[in-house]
Amino acid sequence: MQNPEICLFEPEIAQNTGAIARLCACLGVKLNIVEPASFIINDRRIKRVGMDYVDLVDVKFYDSFHNFKEKYDGRIILLDTKALVPYYGIMYRATDCIMLGKESSGVPDYVYEVCDEKVVIPMVPGLRSLNIAMSGAIAISEALRQLKAV
Amino acid sequence: MQNPEICLFEPEIAQNTGAIARLCACLGVKLNIVEPASFIINDRRIKRVGMDYVDLVDVKFYDSFHNFKEKYDGRIILLDTKALVPYYGIMYRATDCIMLGKESSGVPDYVYEVCDEKVVIPMVPGLRSLNIAMSGAIAISEALRQLKAV
Repeated sequence: MQNPEICLFEPEIAQNTGAIARLCACLGVKLNIVEPASFIINDRRIKRVGMDYVDLVDVKFYDSFHNFKEKYDGRIILLDTKALVPYYGIMYRATDCIMLGKESSGVPDYVYEVCDEKVVIPMVPGLRSLNIAMSGAIAISEALRQLKAV
Repeated sequence: MQNPEICLFEPEIAQNTGAIARLCACLGVKLNIVEPASFIINDRRIKRVGMDYVDLVDVKFYDSFHNFKEKYDGRIILLDTKALVPYYGIMYRATDCIMLGKESSGVPDYVYEVCDEKVVIPMVPGLRSLNIAMSGAIAISEALRQLKAV
């Protein structure tokens, strides 16, 4: 059985990538990483946060978004604070991939435009955003809930 | 309008409490903390992770679970790896409080037994559990989704 996947676009903070690796391991979700990352993957900061989970994740690396887009078969669902549709307002498919932008600036326009869906986690107005790992947990869990995939 | 709340039972790791404070601030959710905590609340480790969010959270402290239970009006929904019902398998109410146990050992039996519902986040068998802040994010988001409260 296939589960939705997660893709990190040029991640900047090793601890967040470690936390997402742990999330993916626990939920049985594959992880895709579009490089460059601002840190060396598998470095000790990821190990510390992701703990033993990191070795249990099925992770694939891509040297560009273009390369990822070309190789990934399903829809790309972008989680973005600029989106208008709540993350629970779409019907997820088992072949979907939830994309998380970089911590500082999300994704550039050329990525935003080609994503199949853009969804947002509704938040109290005027505040900054949720941590990216938390956002990823919320969105992938909704996809898995809809698909009863775990 | 009332939102569901979160309660931390004797939290042990300041960074997790900071992350949950940030979550609560972003989602407009009140935070309850049953002491003792293994750290001084408002210490710099919470500030670092919760950043400016900590000051924006409505947080209440209780010196025991008994005291919290007596004062809290709604149902207490315990998130626990021993539970059998998936977290999305119950109907949440706006007056619910989602309780998260301590990182090392969850909650003691006397707490488990008086919680109104016990729910679990389904995970891949054989692995350890999700980070507590991630678990809290997943469960409170499902409650908010059902209630369309954010």
